[in-house]
Amino acid sequence: MRLRNKPWAEEKLAAYPQYVIQQPESHKGKWREAFGNDHPIYIEVGTGKGRFITEMAMVNPDINFIGIELAKSVIVSALDRLIEADLPNVKLMNENANDLRNFFAKGDVARVYLNFSDPWPKTRHEKRRLTYETFLQVYEDILPEKGEIHFKTDNQGLFESSLMSLSRYGMLLKFVSLDLHNSDFEGNIMTEYEERFSRKGNRIYRLEAQFR
Amino acid sequence: MRLRNKPWAEEKLAAYPQYVIQQPESHKGKWREAFGNDHPIYIEVGTGKGRFITEMAMVNPDINFIGIELAKSVIVSALDRLIEADLPNVKLMNENANDLRNFFAKGDVARVYLNFSDPWPKTRHEKRRLTYETFLQVYEDILPEKGEIHFKTDNQGLFESSLMSLSRYGMLLKFVSLDLHNSDFEGNIMTEYEERFSRKGNRIYRLEAQFR
Ligand SMILES: C[S@@+](CC[C@H](N)C(=O)[O-])C[C@H]1O[C@@H](n2cnc3c(N)ncnc32)[C@H](O)[C@@H]1O
Ligand SMILES: C[S@@+](CC[C@H](N)C(=O)[O-])C[C@H]1O[C@@H](n2cnc3c(N)ncnc32)[C@H](O)[C@@H]1O
Repeated sequence: MRLRNKPWAEEKLAAYPQYVIQQPESHKGKWREAFGNDHPIYIEVGTGKGRFITEMAMVNPDINFIGIELAKSVIVSALDRLIEADLPNVKLMNENANDLRNFFAKGDVARVYLNFSDPWPKTRHEKRRLTYETFLQVYEDILPEKGEIHFKTDNQGLFESSLMSLSRYGMLLKFVSLDLHNSDFEGNIMTEYEERFSRKGNRIYRLEAQFR
Repeated sequence: MRLRNKPWAEEKLAAYPQYVIQQPESHKGKWREAFGNDHPIYIEVGTGKGRFITEMAMVNPDINFIGIELAKSVIVSALDRLIEADLPNVKLMNENANDLRNFFAKGDVARVYLNFSDPWPKTRHEKRRLTYETFLQVYEDILPEKGEIHFKTDNQGLFESSLMSLSRYGMLLKFVSLDLHNSDFEGNIMTEYEERFSRKGNRIYRLEAQFR
């Protein structure tokens, strides 16, 4: 899974167990222990440098957040941000979205955020998109009945294919914005990619979809 | 139903029975008679001045087309176009989308096109949008099982609300383009409104949705 050896990153992640969940499988079905409360847990899959998850945790103190990120070299930046913010309700996990069932039982996660997921524009790579059917099955297995995915991207092709994939899966589209930054949507919290790409003039797309 | 009296338009529509279907309810369940063949019938609801339906009929000689338009003052322009084009496979109907069940039995219509439908942007008018649930019920009742709606618009709010409405109805989104004119979609036939609004620089949105 880890392509390059980054002992410094590995060590740093191990040095902050209050922010980086060390043995996620040990919490499956009993996440109360990890946060010390029963608040709902929202996860962001592919959290990158952690701006979204940290700011969400600041403005939503009664929700617990977990940022899941595969790349060690990236998640260490999110860790720096968490150390700085020093919040009780946000943690990180250096894991692959594929494996979420090992860490979360059905209903352990109350909401899934996907922000600016890698677009994988080639049709032969569509199975790698985080809104592809096999990933939707993973989210469905860790969310409660009628659980929701909230998804933002500036990538037109990814948004189009996601609308079709969610629909094919039978999900309900509860919210769709084709130009989030020029809409009346309130309380948007920007991600690193969102800041960068909206500054370039790209439109930001957003949807909320519910399993049914 | 008719707000203004337009005797000249009324008379003109009556003068061309080969192009304007005079007693649509008489064809219900036996449209073969109207076209003299068993080719599938595609309808456009809100056909306006008829450019789309006429050009579609030209390039698809094995499909029968019916343009349905409420406004007499508008449909007479479509009639002029049909007189000019002189095609055997396209006709008009001066009727309201609400009433389609009176004219078509289940499966009489093989596809429904909606192009640049009136957006009705105010929430209190959402029931008037041609992609609102009550209209979807009408289309479902005249299409075969797994029948399709093909919809284009430049109106962002209408496209967003339509995605949600079709999803709420349980329809499958088979195709979505968020920028039709800059996509690899082939064989697009422009409508009057499409020509006008794309020239102004508006993006054109398009979807195909299937009942399931
Ligand atoms: C394009 S970045 C977006 C980062 C952040 N969400 C933002 O909006 O700024 C996508 C991130 O997803 C991560 N990622 C991709 N596939 C993943 C997977 N299967 N599991 C966990 N993270 C993944 C990548 O390593 C990358 O950091
Ligand atoms: C904005 S125009 C678009 C015309 C054409 N489709 C185009 O793209 O150029 C919408 C048309 O739908 C017609 N219309 C609106 N509601 C209708 C209804 N319930 N039944 C039939 N036609 C309707 C209007 O009269 C109008 O001509």
